[in-house]
Amino acid sequence: MNLIEIGEKAKIASREVAKLTTEEKNAVLRACADALLANKDSIIAANDRDITRGREKGMPENLQDRLMLSDDRIKGMAEGILEMIELADPVGEVLSETKRPNGIIIEKKRVPIGVVGIIYEARPNVTSDAFGLCFKAGNAVVLKGGSDAIESNIAIVSIMRNAIKECGVNPDALLLIEDTSRETARDFMKLNGYIDVLIPRGSAGLIKTVVENSTVPVIETGSGNCHVYVDKSADIEMAKSILVNAKTQRNSVCNACESLLVNKEISEAALPILAAALAEHNVELRCDEKAYEILEGKVSENLLLHGTEEDWGTEFLGSIISINIVENVDAAISHINKYNTGHSETIVTSDEKNAEKFLNEVDAACVYVNASTRFTDGFEFGFGGEIGISTQKLHARGPMGLPELTSYKYVIRGTGQTRK
Amino acid sequence: MNLIEIGEKAKIASREVAKLTTEEKNAVLRACADALLANKDSIIAANDRDITRGREKGMPENLQDRLMLSDDRIKGMAEGILEMIELADPVGEVLSETKRPNGIIIEKKRVPIGVVGIIYEARPNVTSDAFGLCFKAGNAVVLKGGSDAIESNIAIVSIMRNAIKECGVNPDALLLIEDTSRETARDFMKLNGYIDVLIPRGSAGLIKTVVENSTVPVIETGSGNCHVYVDKSADIEMAKSILVNAKTQRNSVCNACESLLVNKEISEAALPILAAALAEHNVELRCDEKAYEILEGKVSENLLLHGTEEDWGTEFLGSIISINIVENVDAAISHINKYNTGHSETIVTSDEKNAEKFLNEVDAACVYVNASTRFTDGFEFGFGGEIGISTQKLHARGPMGLPELTSYKYVIRGTGQTRK
Repeated sequence: MNLIEIGEKAKIASREVAKLTTEEKNAVLRACADALLANKDSIIAANDRDITRGREKGMPENLQDRLMLSDDRIKGMAEGILEMIELADPVGEVLSETKRPNGIIIEKKRVPIGVVGIIYEARPNVTSDAFGLCFKAGNAVVLKGGSDAIESNIAIVSIMRNAIKECGVNPDALLLIEDTSRETARDFMKLNGYIDVLIPRGSAGLIKTVVENSTVPVIETGSGNCHVYVDKSADIEMAKSILVNAKTQRNSVCNACESLLVNKEISEAALPILAAALAEHNVELRCDEKAYEILEGKVSENLLLHGTEEDWGTEFLGSIISINIVENVDAAISHINKYNTGHSETIVTSDEKNAEKFLNEVDAACVYVNASTRFTDGFEFGFGGEIGISTQKLHARGPMGLPELTSYKYVIRGTGQTRK
Repeated sequence: MNLIEIGEKAKIASREVAKLTTEEKNAVLRACADALLANKDSIIAANDRDITRGREKGMPENLQDRLMLSDDRIKGMAEGILEMIELADPVGEVLSETKRPNGIIIEKKRVPIGVVGIIYEARPNVTSDAFGLCFKAGNAVVLKGGSDAIESNIAIVSIMRNAIKECGVNPDALLLIEDTSRETARDFMKLNGYIDVLIPRGSAGLIKTVVENSTVPVIETGSGNCHVYVDKSADIEMAKSILVNAKTQRNSVCNACESLLVNKEISEAALPILAAALAEHNVELRCDEKAYEILEGKVSENLLLHGTEEDWGTEFLGSIISINIVENVDAAISHINKYNTGHSETIVTSDEKNAEKFLNEVDAACVYVNASTRFTDGFEFGFGGEIGISTQKLHARGPMGLPELTSYKYVIRGTGQTRK
């Protein structure tokens, strides 16, 4: 199948999926989960071939781990799909209704987006996850996974397509682009008229490529240079606990903290405590001049470095943090608005005025007072799932759940009205 | 100023505009309206230079008319801005609030988008209109008008910038790109990090160029191949009145009808009546085989033509309509979903089941039963204004008013919570 054929099939399927009832969609999800479990051996066999090929090509161990599927991981994928059954179906919700003076009644009604394209990298669990969420929101899905996981993806998609078909639903609700070449990826990004939205999931490089090359609408996700700002009036114990959680609980994720800002007036007292707590977790500290001076001799010199402006803007996704001393909350806000990626930012303070200033003026999807940035997540927000975290301002911002996978239409009922 | 400087200035201004109260924004709008009226002579002088240059280049009269500003038109521009004062300020609205089991409170709050870019063509009234709407929604605006209107645009923007400044607001809330070259337009479309959304207003060609070349998020607007489907049970008088209104009340606009579909079972009786009504308005009829047969000898042969598949998909924006006979409502829906542009579609019927089927299954921003497609308009919908009509499914669909010029952010308040 070429891409146009895939696009046409997806478009046709999307119109059928849009008409399904909640019960019909849930039956498909249940069948997909059952099919994954029933066919786990063939999935693992396909995954083994991916892993073997990866090992032969010298794939790093951490990537091998992300790629690897086990009984437990397949069970996790099936459970993930089953959980989507419990989620409220957003389709059909009436968002507003107006009667105009001329008598026409205008209803604004939630409808599926249509065809959602997903471009992603190594993790094969995204295959079942992304399909489940998009499908529950009434969409058809076209997936383009990475070459490293192609055998696993083909196996998973083929099993789920059979399950969809057995439910009497058009299996083209789930399509996989099996050609993993870059040229095909770029053509996929230009399938206007077939793909209603493209969501990249993966590295900053992948997201940048999609943003720069797509002519179909894109939702930019993921990259997070998240800041913790410790204000003058902060409870230092609270600041320490939030900072350590945000930086070290899981440091390879987009909502992890990458940058610490400390108010100048408390920096002499607070920074050594905060830095020592990070050093305990072996976090490298890339400091501005003032922070370096304060910390010199107080933390292991292996961990203490002079930072550069590049560091202030870097998403390390590892055991590194940048540290800046700032004059006050205004300076903290300016610094964040200059270097952040619009993801998640937190202030630790007991000053309500500064808290409100920070919440209002920091330009990010999620702004926190006295809580860890790690909460930016569809499950933590109570959405029951997420397709990604948007860092753009159009359509959706922050964690995207089912409603963010829908659009709306205006339904207008008249009795013969014409425009004057 | 180069584009990066313009982008930086707009970004800075956008943060200031986002903080303005409704009263402060309204004061700016009032000052802009007053300034346009007070300086109308200099605007008209600048406009005269554009018109003269256009005439010398052989600009068609209808384009000269679109470009021309008069006392009345400037009064209209000022009144347009004054009307925006009455519109409800969408910024700050709390869209939802949840308390999570761990005690964090998550508020979803409406915020401005930031910097809105507008690319448009000849009409200089877009300059004041687009600024007014975007600014009322708390945004800074970067405008890129066409070369034909450059002197008019420079005059209008300069007058409004002065008015903004006199209100104590950063005048960079309104910036005009004075270089009207194509290269600059293309660079503007790639100003990621500065422009949060780009909205093209103008011809299908302009919109296509923006969609294909932008790396910043775009809202696709405008193009409308709108259908009127006359169902078997239609009241023929109502169908005639809706069709004539949709096709002829103003035929150069995106919500005008371009395609007529008639149910086969009533086509012998209804089509001659409908076609005669169109012929009275001198509308050229591009028919499929069946429609041609029915109409042969019944309407002036000057107006009766054989249509082609290209015609079924064309937005004529003039006194031409395509006509197809369809089997039933399902065939009408398939035809529309194949050829439409996702704008506005109407069914004339007295069969409630067919009406609901049509409303549910036709994929368009606005779907009508028994009313003219010409109602797809921000004023007719009661929005009090519109920045354009979106034909994409992301972010906004149909007429876009003030709320569609906003985004949202999550504001999370905690008491020291960390993620487990």
